[in-house]
Amino acid sequence: MQPNDPTLKSFIETSPECHFPIQNLPFGIFSNLEDPTLRVGVAIGDQVLDLAILADADLLPLPSEIFLSGSLNQFVALGHATWRATRELISHLLRDDNPLLRDDQTLRAAAFLRQDAVTLHLPMEIAGYTDFYSSKEHATNVGSMFRDPENALLPNWLHIPIGYNGRASSVVVSGTALHRPKGQLKLPDVDAPIFAPSRKLDFELETGFLIGQPNALGEPIDINVAEQHIFGMVLLNDWSARDLQQWEYVPLGPFNSKSFGTSISPWVVTMEALEPFRVASPVQQPTPLPYLQQQTDNAYDIALEVTLTPIEDEGKPGSGQTICKTNFKAMYWTMAQQLAHHTVSGCNTKVGDLMGSGTISGSASGAFGSLLELTRNGQKPLILANGMQRGFIQDGDAISMTGWCQGDGYRVGFGQVTGKILPAR
Amino acid sequence: MQPNDPTLKSFIETSPECHFPIQNLPFGIFSNLEDPTLRVGVAIGDQVLDLAILADADLLPLPSEIFLSGSLNQFVALGHATWRATRELISHLLRDDNPLLRDDQTLRAAAFLRQDAVTLHLPMEIAGYTDFYSSKEHATNVGSMFRDPENALLPNWLHIPIGYNGRASSVVVSGTALHRPKGQLKLPDVDAPIFAPSRKLDFELETGFLIGQPNALGEPIDINVAEQHIFGMVLLNDWSARDLQQWEYVPLGPFNSKSFGTSISPWVVTMEALEPFRVASPVQQPTPLPYLQQQTDNAYDIALEVTLTPIEDEGKPGSGQTICKTNFKAMYWTMAQQLAHHTVSGCNTKVGDLMGSGTISGSASGAFGSLLELTRNGQKPLILANGMQRGFIQDGDAISMTGWCQGDGYRVGFGQVTGKILPAR
Repeated sequence: MQPNDPTLKSFIETSPECHFPIQNLPFGIFSNLEDPTLRVGVAIGDQVLDLAILADADLLPLPSEIFLSGSLNQFVALGHATWRATRELISHLLRDDNPLLRDDQTLRAAAFLRQDAVTLHLPMEIAGYTDFYSSKEHATNVGSMFRDPENALLPNWLHIPIGYNGRASSVVVSGTALHRPKGQLKLPDVDAPIFAPSRKLDFELETGFLIGQPNALGEPIDINVAEQHIFGMVLLNDWSARDLQQWEYVPLGPFNSKSFGTSISPWVVTMEALEPFRVASPVQQPTPLPYLQQQTDNAYDIALEVTLTPIEDEGKPGSGQTICKTNFKAMYWTMAQQLAHHTVSGCNTKVGDLMGSGTISGSASGAFGSLLELTRNGQKPLILANGMQRGFIQDGDAISMTGWCQGDGYRVGFGQVTGKILPAR
Repeated sequence: MQPNDPTLKSFIETSPECHFPIQNLPFGIFSNLEDPTLRVGVAIGDQVLDLAILADADLLPLPSEIFLSGSLNQFVALGHATWRATRELISHLLRDDNPLLRDDQTLRAAAFLRQDAVTLHLPMEIAGYTDFYSSKEHATNVGSMFRDPENALLPNWLHIPIGYNGRASSVVVSGTALHRPKGQLKLPDVDAPIFAPSRKLDFELETGFLIGQPNALGEPIDINVAEQHIFGMVLLNDWSARDLQQWEYVPLGPFNSKSFGTSISPWVVTMEALEPFRVASPVQQPTPLPYLQQQTDNAYDIALEVTLTPIEDEGKPGSGQTICKTNFKAMYWTMAQQLAHHTVSGCNTKVGDLMGSGTISGSASGAFGSLLELTRNGQKPLILANGMQRGFIQDGDAISMTGWCQGDGYRVGFGQVTGKILPAR
C-alpha cells in the first residue's frame, strides 16, 4: 500500500478529524524540557516521532546528525528522492500491521513524545521570503478600497503572478507573540505624518510553500517541473499594519508594515501528502504567456478557517470565534506558476526559501482573508459573540488559522498557526 | 599612532592612488589555485594578507578556523570590539617600523599573496538584502520620467527613507557575468505583454552597508547607535531591467526586474577606516520625525565613478569610458537613518544583512547613477568614444564602478565592482 492509501491505519490511533493521520506525516522541528536539542520530528496523531532516535536504531538509512542540525534544511537538501523515501519508510514503520516499532516498547518509549509536551520551532531556516498576491478576489477587494472600484485589478494582474520580496528574518513560528508595530501614519486631515503605534493592525490568511530543490542563478525553473522543487506547505499569517502600509507602499511596495513579523505553522505538509487533493487549476482568461501555461492540475483543495480570540475572552475555553472560512483551491495563480515566474528572469532559489500565496479570499464576505476586507477597512466592524466590535486587531487579541484537506474518513491537516498581539513597546 | 593616522606607512609600499594603504585594511574572502579554501584576507597595497596564517602564527588572538569558514560572518559575529581590535593589530603588524612581520621572510612568503593571483569571493553570506532609494536627485529624475514632472517626488519621500526588500540569493561578487534577463514587457502599442529578453537593461550605482551587530525582533535600533551596528561598506551595482520593472512594479514594487543579479565589490571597507571622511549630513526639510533625527554628522565623502566598456572595444586596454562621476555625501537619507527606519517597526536584522543606498545621482547630468537618467530612458543615447551609441546596456558590455575617500596624500578606496552582461539564454 502506498503512504497515501486512505485505508492505511497506524498503531497510533487517530480520529477522523485529526490533522495528522498516517496519510499525512508532516515534518517539523521540536525540543522538550528534558532535551533542549532542536530535532526533526514527524507528527502522527497526538504524538511526535523523533527521527534521530529512529536513525540511531538503524530504522532510517541516514545518520542521526541530519536530524539534529536545528532545522529541516540539511535533511531537505538531500533531495526529493530522500524526502519521499523517508516518508515511505516512516509510513511503513507506523502501520498497525508492522510489529517492528509497534511491539518494541523500549524504542516506542524513546521515540514518541506527546505533542502537548514538546516545543515546536521554526521548521526551516528561512533563506528568503517571497510573498505573492494571487487571489483575484483579494486583489479586487484591495484595489476597490485603495484605488479605483471601476478598475480594481491593475492591468498587469491577469498576466503576472504578482509578488514581492518579503523580510525573511522576521518569519516566526506559530505561538510567537508579536508587539504591535510603531511607524509612520498619515492621518487624512494633516499634511505631515505622525509616529505612533499602528491603529489598523491586520492579519492575512495565506499558505506558504518551502523550496526543497534549488535552482542556480541564470537557470529558470520550467513550470512543468516546478512542483518537484517544492518540499511542502505551511499556513502563513502575513501580519500587516494597514496604516503604515498605505503611507509607505508607493512606489516600492510594503516594507515596515509587514516586516515586524510573519507567522508560519510548525508542521510542513509534504507535496506527496497533498497529492490526493490536487484539483483543477482555475480557468485563466486571458491565457497566460507560454512560460506560465500548465499541463496538469496544479491547485489543491485545502479548507481554511481563521479564528479570533478577543482579549476580553482570554483564557475562556472555546472563546475563539471563526471569522473566515475559505479554500485554497480558488486561488487564481498556482504555486507552479508563482515559482516559474519567480525564476524566469534567472533568479535563483535556495533550500528553505518560503513563498507565500498572498491573502486567500473567496467571493463571499465570510470568505475574506483579512480584516481589511471583512470590515471594509474598519468601517463595518465585526460584531463578536461577546458583544464587542472589531475593525482591526486589539492588543491582547489572538488570531489562529487552520487548514486541512478532507479525505474519505480522514483529514490531511496543517494544524494551526496562532499569534497574539502584545501592546506596542 | 592610530590605524587612521595619515602619516602611517607600511613596509608594503603603496602609491598615493592605491585604494588599499595601511589606513584602509578592508576585509574580504579569497582563494587561490594552490589552495581553494575560502579564507579571510585583508587588502594591503597589491597584496592580500592571509589572516588564518597570522592566527596560526599566534599573531592574532583568534583561532584560525574563524578565518576559514567561507565568509566573514563568523568573524564579524564576534562583535564590534573584535573587528576593531583585529584591524588595529593588523595595522601594527604592517607598519614599516615593526620588524615582527616585516623581517620574517618565511612568514611573509606564506602570509602574503598578490591580489592578481587570487580569486575574490562574496565577502559575507548575505542574510537579507534591503535596497533604499535615498538620493533626492534620483527619485526626482525617476518620478519625472515615469510619473509626473510637476510632482516628481511622492508625498512620503521627504518623510521616509523609502526602501524595499531585495532578493538576497542573487547577490554576487564583482566579476560574475550575468545573462540578460527575460521577462514580461509591455509594448506601448499593444494591450498584452510579450515575453522577451529585456531591451532596457541598466545599472544602478550604489553603495551598500553590511550589518555586523544584529538586533532582536521587536527591539528597534536607536539612530544614535545605528552606525555601531554596521561592519562596513561595499560598492553595489543594482542591475535593473527597466522594461520589466515598468510593467511589474505597481503596486508591490520591483521583482523580476532586479532579482536576476546584484553585484557587490569584494572588499568590505570598515566604518573605522571611513571615520576620517565623515562629513555633515544633508540639510533635511521638513525636519524628520524624532526617530530619524541625528545628533552627529552621518554622511561620508566618497567619490564614485562608473565606467562602461563597450563590446566593440572588448580586450582593448584602456577602452573603458567614464560615464558618471558623483559623490556619496549628497545622499539625502543617511545609513543611520535607513537602519533606524528599517527596524523601528520591530524588524530584526542579522549579521550579513546587506542594505543598498539606492541609486546615487548628483544634480549635474554627468553625475547620474543610471543609464535611465543619463539617456532619458534611452531617448538621448550616450555617444561613446568609439562612435557607437548606448541607450541601455548591450550584450557583451561591461560596467565597472569604483569609489574612494581622498585623504591627504592617500586614498581609502573600495577597489571596484565589475560585471559583464552575457546574451539572454
